[in-house]
Amino acid sequence: MIRKADVAELRTQQIIKATVRCLARDGFSQLTMKRLAAEADVSQGALHYYFKDKRAILAAAAEHVMNDLEAQVAAEVGGARDARLRLRAMIRACLSVATKEREFWTVFMALWSETLHDDTLAAINRKTYRRARHAIAKVIEIGVAEGQFKISDVAATSALVLAVVDGISLQLTFEKKLMAAASAERMCETLLLGYLESGRG
Amino acid sequence: MIRKADVAELRTQQIIKATVRCLARDGFSQLTMKRLAAEADVSQGALHYYFKDKRAILAAAAEHVMNDLEAQVAAEVGGARDARLRLRAMIRACLSVATKEREFWTVFMALWSETLHDDTLAAINRKTYRRARHAIAKVIEIGVAEGQFKISDVAATSALVLAVVDGISLQLTFEKKLMAAASAERMCETLLLGYLESGRG
Repeated sequence: MIRKADVAELRTQQIIKATVRCLARDGFSQLTMKRLAAEADVSQGALHYYFKDKRAILAAAAEHVMNDLEAQVAAEVGGARDARLRLRAMIRACLSVATKEREFWTVFMALWSETLHDDTLAAINRKTYRRARHAIAKVIEIGVAEGQFKISDVAATSALVLAVVDGISLQLTFEKKLMAAASAERMCETLLLGYLESGRG
Repeated sequence: MIRKADVAELRTQQIIKATVRCLARDGFSQLTMKRLAAEADVSQGALHYYFKDKRAILAAAAEHVMNDLEAQVAAEVGGARDARLRLRAMIRACLSVATKEREFWTVFMALWSETLHDDTLAAINRKTYRRARHAIAKVIEIGVAEGQFKISDVAATSALVLAVVDGISLQLTFEKKLMAAASAERMCETLLLGYLESGRG
């Protein structure tokens, strides 16, 4: 038996995937509920049943791709046996989103553009960033507890680690051939380990 | 006597400034040539004389804010007397754009959203990023020549320096109270100097 909640979950996934395709093809400015309903192969009534408007869908899409990334990072980090390897796993999982999956940055670039004039979406974006920093802080804290990392200001350092991964991901998104993913990973790791292990942070 | 070229330059500046205000208030999706003409206080005919469409204006706005940033960076870096101080000056100039001026990131976030589905704008964005990395590469190269920095892959390191500055700027743009500008500058400097002086890059 298929439960109602499962149907809702399936429909939501279907709509979000269609949203990502529409964003990549036409951009948020050309996104309409009508086009989206057609792309998702649902009726406009069904679309409106799940989402009030295209802003609500953009917010849901951001949460969806962030959940995906977080799950990938958790899976990679969970298997690593020390602080260095956990950092490496985290960097690798994040950069692989930039080089292999368009969805994440497609949604976030559309979202950022809207945050400039939409306080609700700006708040959702801030919440996503806090969540990312929090996940990074946990990796740093365990590294400190194990004696590998020497960091006094974990919160600020989390922002710094996120900045490096974000900044390189952006450039790789803009320019696929900028450098090999493996080189980018190694470089980020060397940069960040130097900081995390030095006692300067 | 006011020359025709000066008038053109003034009009262009006026239109670009109006574009930034429109982007911050309504976003690119709500930007129309009609609204923009009203905001810039020029006729629609005059607007069309200078720019073909709103994409052309977005491209010009990106170039304009990038020129501004580059001039600020050059002024700060030019006065610094060694490699460390030049790096610090560059970081400070870039982060001050994120904390004090909305224009730069307003334009770039609107631009990025459009690069997803507009190859011309994507090419302009890539060109801007290459230009930024090139400016950073010069600072690194002089530091290497002076014996302060030990970097073998200057191109890759330029991308890394840009990533740090970009990534922190983004978070400061999203969340003004994330950390004080001075702390952010110090942290970026410590992170990057550790890498640039270590011989690991």
